Amino acid sequence: MTDALPFAGEPEDSHEAIMRATFCALQEHGYAGLSIQRIADEADLSKSTFYHHFDGKEDLLLSFLEFTLEEFDRVFKLESSGDPAKDLRTFFGLLLGDFPTAGGMPEQEDILATYVELRAQAVRNPDFRAKFTETDREFTARIAALVEEGIEDGVFRDVDPERTAQFLLTTLEGITLQNATRDDNPLPELRTAIESYMESELLVADSADS
Amino acid sequence: MTDALPFAGEPEDSHEAIMRATFCALQEHGYAGLSIQRIADEADLSKSTFYHHFDGKEDLLLSFLEFTLEEFDRVFKLESSGDPAKDLRTFFGLLLGDFPTAGGMPEQEDILATYVELRAQAVRNPDFRAKFTETDREFTARIAALVEEGIEDGVFRDVDPERTAQFLLTTLEGITLQNATRDDNPLPELRTAIESYMESELLVADSADS
Repeated sequence: MTDALPFAGEPEDSHEAIMRATFCALQEHGYAGLSIQRIADEADLSKSTFYHHFDGKEDLLLSFLEFTLEEFDRVFKLESSGDPAKDLRTFFGLLLGDFPTAGGMPEQEDILATYVELRAQAVRNPDFRAKFTETDREFTARIAALVEEGIEDGVFRDVDPERTAQFLLTTLEGITLQNATRDDNPLPELRTAIESYMESELLVADSADS
Repeated sequence: MTDALPFAGEPEDSHEAIMRATFCALQEHGYAGLSIQRIADEADLSKSTFYHHFDGKEDLLLSFLEFTLEEFDRVFKLESSGDPAKDLRTFFGLLLGDFPTAGGMPEQEDILATYVELRAQAVRNPDFRAKFTETDREFTARIAALVEEGIEDGVFRDVDPERTAQFLLTTLEGITLQNATRDDNPLPELRTAIESYMESELLVADSADS
């Protein structure tokens, strides 16, 4: 998988085939309807091959979260330009599902909805909670690095990068939650809101149109 | 129930007893483990009394969301002071669980976690989605009214009340989501972040310490 599209082309190995099948099965059946059998069917693998890779559903989903983070990083690296303001917008866009999806794969909206369903499992499952804590921290670190770069370049104000990053990630997660659980399509307006936050809090005045 | 505490004192009628039992059962068993039998047991009512009030689990939970919103309004009215900046902070605090809970009732943290579990059901359930869309809009309207009041009183800047309210609600929901699904207790830092947002975006400079 070397394409800019997540899950484009043929899977390179059975691990990737299982990740892809998990993605499709989650989308089709939801968290509650996810079963090893359904994933094995989707990936065209036997259940024994599946259990060669994973201990069970939870182990699989923790791997799946890991895989998703790696995919995110891979696509972000391909799309980043070296301009911190532009890259920050690209990063936010990717978090909100701005990537073309490969044919036959779930749509962006559905990917965000699946994220919310998985994240809600962390309420009662300590391993999921540990994993989402880790991914939140990694995302915060990536956003903070972009903010820091922008401050050094003189395009961002002298804010606290870590705190700003945490606030932004929290708001982006709130957007994802609302978008997946409301029926009035709040995404476009919320994107505008986060853009105005960037303009008023982050960008120095004379680079606001950069 | 006339107390400032949600669910304090004896329930006034069987509807309230069922709401209270739902709250406890959700907390104890989670959404997945919630059953009419468990709620009936918790409320010390027969299943037939239960079905006299509700068609089933989904109907009950929609009523429960309604009831929670009414409780929120009731407690907010009791605590509001007429000072828009103070009331906005009270409102945010209540959304983030700042209220003493009655003895024997779930703790604030658990209430926020239950909210996230219920909200995630809206990903796949259109009736839940409609209900959360409605409650989001009502919360946005309440926040916007406070922002408007603050602008009229000259303590808030001349922002767009509706857009600011939507952004704030989204961030508060992001905080709730993170708090219920991370194991590093992000709440105190996120509260600080929303306070600094209020100070830099909303409060006019000379009233920042009001």
